[in-house]
Amino acid sequence: MRQSQLFTKTRREAPKDEVAKNAQLLIRAGYIHKEMAGVYAYLPLGLRVVEKIKKIVREEMDKIGGQEIIMTALQRKDLWEITDRWSDEKVDVWFKSTLKSGGEVGFGWSHEEPITEMMKNFIASYRDLPAYVYQFQTKLRNELRAKSGIMRGREFVMKDMYSYCIDEAAHKKFYNEAVDAYTRVFERVGLGAKTFLTFASGGAFTQFSHEFQTLSDAGEDTVYVDRAKKIAINQEVLSPEVMNQLGVKREELEEAKAIEVGNIFSFGDVKSKQLGLYYKDESGEQKPVILGSYGIGVTRLMGTLVEVFADEKGIVWPEEVAPFRVHLIEIASDNDEVKNEAKELYRELNEAGVEVLWDDRDARAGEKFADSDLLGIPLRIVVSEKTLAAGKFECTLRMTGRVEYKSLSELIGHLTSHV
Amino acid sequence: MRQSQLFTKTRREAPKDEVAKNAQLLIRAGYIHKEMAGVYAYLPLGLRVVEKIKKIVREEMDKIGGQEIIMTALQRKDLWEITDRWSDEKVDVWFKSTLKSGGEVGFGWSHEEPITEMMKNFIASYRDLPAYVYQFQTKLRNELRAKSGIMRGREFVMKDMYSYCIDEAAHKKFYNEAVDAYTRVFERVGLGAKTFLTFASGGAFTQFSHEFQTLSDAGEDTVYVDRAKKIAINQEVLSPEVMNQLGVKREELEEAKAIEVGNIFSFGDVKSKQLGLYYKDESGEQKPVILGSYGIGVTRLMGTLVEVFADEKGIVWPEEVAPFRVHLIEIASDNDEVKNEAKELYRELNEAGVEVLWDDRDARAGEKFADSDLLGIPLRIVVSEKTLAAGKFECTLRMTGRVEYKSLSELIGHLTSHV
Repeated sequence: MRQSQLFTKTRREAPKDEVAKNAQLLIRAGYIHKEMAGVYAYLPLGLRVVEKIKKIVREEMDKIGGQEIIMTALQRKDLWEITDRWSDEKVDVWFKSTLKSGGEVGFGWSHEEPITEMMKNFIASYRDLPAYVYQFQTKLRNELRAKSGIMRGREFVMKDMYSYCIDEAAHKKFYNEAVDAYTRVFERVGLGAKTFLTFASGGAFTQFSHEFQTLSDAGEDTVYVDRAKKIAINQEVLSPEVMNQLGVKREELEEAKAIEVGNIFSFGDVKSKQLGLYYKDESGEQKPVILGSYGIGVTRLMGTLVEVFADEKGIVWPEEVAPFRVHLIEIASDNDEVKNEAKELYRELNEAGVEVLWDDRDARAGEKFADSDLLGIPLRIVVSEKTLAAGKFECTLRMTGRVEYKSLSELIGHLTSHV
Repeated sequence: MRQSQLFTKTRREAPKDEVAKNAQLLIRAGYIHKEMAGVYAYLPLGLRVVEKIKKIVREEMDKIGGQEIIMTALQRKDLWEITDRWSDEKVDVWFKSTLKSGGEVGFGWSHEEPITEMMKNFIASYRDLPAYVYQFQTKLRNELRAKSGIMRGREFVMKDMYSYCIDEAAHKKFYNEAVDAYTRVFERVGLGAKTFLTFASGGAFTQFSHEFQTLSDAGEDTVYVDRAKKIAINQEVLSPEVMNQLGVKREELEEAKAIEVGNIFSFGDVKSKQLGLYYKDESGEQKPVILGSYGIGVTRLMGTLVEVFADEKGIVWPEEVAPFRVHLIEIASDNDEVKNEAKELYRELNEAGVEVLWDDRDARAGEKFADSDLLGIPLRIVVSEKTLAAGKFECTLRMTGRVEYKSLSELIGHLTSHV
């Protein structure tokens, strides 16, 4: 894409009302727009990052048998009353409204109830199980405070998956597959080293739920990390018994702030019994379906990536989620030769299937470099009179600052071997 | 995909509370799930159709310079008050709620106001124009009645694009490009022959707006079609003056019911003046930006396709929007040779990049054929003892019922030449 045609612009100053680093940088760089506290629109560059994250999550969910659907924002009161989660005393993040045709409706802050209710249409026999369904849904939550940028919003994108299994053994097997899939997601987006499978409080059915916590001072949670075991324990369940049970020692645990980027949870047969989701087993006996739920905060993950990797100059995207792979900077003044060289490189890279943002704007070099640092695209390639004379392009990795000089064929070879 | 793994099932009976043909068939076939009146979830097959339509629309919007973003569901009261569209007397489809932190919020039924407000961050000079932005947004509308299935819902997906131009001439040029892009969209989804550019009532700024109306008895609108000129006139503006102006004669116009699948509209400088979106021209003079809006009802389009093409046996999808290109039906009973042949064909087709739904279920032939007719996938390929003996596959086009017998190489050749 030609940057001169991108309608968004960078800003020097962060908006005054924005305290979170992720939102400050993403707004300054033109990735997002703040509609109101905790409510952000995603502009062309931001949407590209969201879609990259979704693609990775989708691939990993599909790999373990997930089938993608999309549920609704509007929610039936009667359904949530069955599980006693309609009243504001029980769930304090509902947005509710009134239908013109009469009656109240809610706006989806979670979707276990409607998905489980829907599955009653499709699950009757043991032959219909297992079923794994997921969606990327815009969740609406009436949070009292919203000051963590896109990490805790009133409107945000979440991937939520639900597993329907025949019994506890089948559930456990899938649960473990989901843990592995989640681990791959966080590795692929670049957070593998900082993200820990974390033991957190369970519910009526299991002692623990599991979270994926990414270490960051911007986090709202406190966890205790055992780096050798690659696990963590959420503060809420830390106790001598739990440490003993997990085989960790207090003195070996490292206390850290962390961001909950994913969570997985066993409902057992509780929701199925409440909502009436039963199947007939081989002997014809009626049994409740075993339910699990698996969430990844897609936009929260995007915010986490900014919090974890950004430096004083701006955003730094890991390669797999960057809006573009290459930021091609033309320092041309009025040199047509440089302009043509940049244009030609842009064409060659596009042809090779490399996503490029080409800064073809009529702007000063300093401004272009500052914008490039702010935008955080992984590889910067400079075309200038100097590089033209040298016969090599200047290639800088945003993450490390490492500079290399490469000929066109070296560059194409390097980039396509990675694609 | 293997049909035995698809969690949705077909139903013989339509739900009793559903009067619209599109919803009846889509629910029976397992494409959608009704959450409440006018509110539908999209299941794996349905989501595939939605995404196919979005892909076509996206490609055509990108071709004319559109940049994709995603705005928010939550809407600021103060913003909509500026244009006097907050009160329920002025706009009767608002869903509204109350923030825990205080104050009212609305849920987006349209997005001209927030997008135009946002563009004030990015448009200051004539150099920042034109800008064309679009989104695929879930619109929420508090409709009093909802009985047209997915054609008029309380929650539905819409593509809305907004153009920001320097003056009326630039606007007009883009407006015409958008007409062409829309024409291509409707052609590509298979509705070209039945869809007419329709003159409808304008607003403060122009005499006409333009709709794209697809002829169908399920439509809510009445239009007057001039087939030779390939235009139509909405009943609401039909008058001797208008017919004269458009060079059509009443006796040559054909009255028809139609579904509004798209609309384009000039706002002129009205919204820009209300919201304060100005730019500085070359001489430094402050001028209001000229705004246009361009909508396509994505899920409505899906419903329209069902209404227009379905027959007494079920849904019939045009090729470009079908959830799968091929429905591979294995009639195996316990014949392992047939099963292996089907499996091998499935592998070969997937390898050739052809999307296949493989009915590998242990079910009777009659049930499989009935389901296949209901699902409406364009090409049905049968593998059975009979086809095995003949050395050719039986290939039936759902749209026409035409049957051909093809060898594997003929089949692959045919399918890949079309891809």
